[in-house]
Amino acid sequence: MNSPFAEEVKHFFMNLQDDICTAIQQKDGMAKFHEDAWAREGGGGGRTRVLQDGAIIDKGGVNWSAVYGELPKNIQKALNLSSDFFFASGVSIVMHPVNPHVPIIHMNIRYFETRKSKDSKEIQDAWFGGGIDLTPHYIVDEDAKWFHEQLKNVCDQHDGSYYSDHKKWADDYFFIKHRKETRGIGGIFFDRMKANSETSLIDLFNYVKGVGEAFAPIYTTLMSKNSSKPYGDQELEWQKIRRGRYVEFNLVYDKGTKFGLDTDGRIESILMSLPRMAGWPYDFQPEEGSKEADTLSKLVKGVNWV
Amino acid sequence: MNSPFAEEVKHFFMNLQDDICTAIQQKDGMAKFHEDAWAREGGGGGRTRVLQDGAIIDKGGVNWSAVYGELPKNIQKALNLSSDFFFASGVSIVMHPVNPHVPIIHMNIRYFETRKSKDSKEIQDAWFGGGIDLTPHYIVDEDAKWFHEQLKNVCDQHDGSYYSDHKKWADDYFFIKHRKETRGIGGIFFDRMKANSETSLIDLFNYVKGVGEAFAPIYTTLMSKNSSKPYGDQELEWQKIRRGRYVEFNLVYDKGTKFGLDTDGRIESILMSLPRMAGWPYDFQPEEGSKEADTLSKLVKGVNWV
Repeated sequence: MNSPFAEEVKHFFMNLQDDICTAIQQKDGMAKFHEDAWAREGGGGGRTRVLQDGAIIDKGGVNWSAVYGELPKNIQKALNLSSDFFFASGVSIVMHPVNPHVPIIHMNIRYFETRKSKDSKEIQDAWFGGGIDLTPHYIVDEDAKWFHEQLKNVCDQHDGSYYSDHKKWADDYFFIKHRKETRGIGGIFFDRMKANSETSLIDLFNYVKGVGEAFAPIYTTLMSKNSSKPYGDQELEWQKIRRGRYVEFNLVYDKGTKFGLDTDGRIESILMSLPRMAGWPYDFQPEEGSKEADTLSKLVKGVNWV
Repeated sequence: MNSPFAEEVKHFFMNLQDDICTAIQQKDGMAKFHEDAWAREGGGGGRTRVLQDGAIIDKGGVNWSAVYGELPKNIQKALNLSSDFFFASGVSIVMHPVNPHVPIIHMNIRYFETRKSKDSKEIQDAWFGGGIDLTPHYIVDEDAKWFHEQLKNVCDQHDGSYYSDHKKWADDYFFIKHRKETRGIGGIFFDRMKANSETSLIDLFNYVKGVGEAFAPIYTTLMSKNSSKPYGDQELEWQKIRRGRYVEFNLVYDKGTKFGLDTDGRIESILMSLPRMAGWPYDFQPEEGSKEADTLSKLVKGVNWV
């Protein structure tokens, strides 16, 4: 039996998946999400939903899962935990659009809870993590500013320090170290946020709810605004290169991906984040003064978009 | 100053790069290798040669390098060494062909040597590593058998146990754990082969020479045999998926790639192994009885091709 709080979080996440799928599908207007429900041997399961060949979305996934059971020893070690029983639930999203002028977006919100053993009722440890970040193939300053403003609005409703702290965390996390490039224009990222003397687990849940509910209005706005912009072969080639960088980040650095691969998770659910097509032409260097060079120059940490 | 033996190995590798590039270029008949020579701050450098948009090769790299200097602490630790000074040289090749009926091939041969300090003349530790393995998009039994026979011939000229030992090593190494698939049909792989009471460093060098010299005749034969076979959209889609698996292996598991990224190597030289285009359509399942399903069924360890 999961704790009543865990059940509440799980149901919120489940409904959020439904709402987001409905909003994206409606805005796309063409393709429909395909659902694969899966069960985990040790306990729990998930619903992977992927939309492909849409009018606006080339490949996009909205995954929900709620898993529980004995905490594997390697994860106890990796997370530095002494608990035997865990519950984890979350929603993960990645959208790869058709049109290179529409940005790639990623959202993840998650809750993790441990108990000393299966039979103990007391929660031993509990935390939230998550964030939203944007990866435009072409950075449009106005859109980047607007995107960060939306996130700041969400953050400010909960804690005046969240935006600047979690924006910096995103800059540091979504960094492709070997390229010395950020993955995109960042956003917010946070992990292992626990209750303390000033903030309850309910307060944190409310913040995470705010982040989750901000996703659909933010992304559908960016879809509408950019999906009719014209593009040609040059933009498609650049899109493939930026998607290649996305693959590099996810396979080399992303902790969620690594966790999934190491724990024998459902591969096609974990790797739904990878694009339908990506490319690595040798040593591509954008021409000086080009819009590709302009974007590259902005893929750095610490840009104050708001 | 490198040891005379190190200099000899380095020059053999350098000439081998020339010979292989000439053979591939001649067989391709259209594109030419582009060379980027680079220097390493701590000592040494390399020549990265990449051919793109060929008649037969879509993207292929033949890299040579010879680097030396102080052995970074993190590598001392990773390799469990107590030496302060190192020399390393090698040739690395990956070829991604245009036609899905031509297999992807990989070869690497390398020599590593340490000395207690820069000024000491005595070699402290020295070993060879390397191998050749094949990744057909479509496995043709006859070609797989022929490929393994060529490798067995090379091995048998040096040691009767090499082929079976190094074939098993390749099966274990080129394994995409999270997919439970081998990358291709394997080949031979070996690492840290040191001199012992029966085998001298010169013997090992002769084996590595044999492997290096076998590459061009093997691959140009496979190019000739398969590059005129007809293919369509179905084969190109499958090629993108198999290339995607290649990317997964290289970014998640390959030790050489990880070593390069961790030690701040030249990124475009390290990642020349990645294809010009790859894809991840969601949860692709080949039709029962199709040639794609047949190939998938053979991507397992322990197939006795010879």
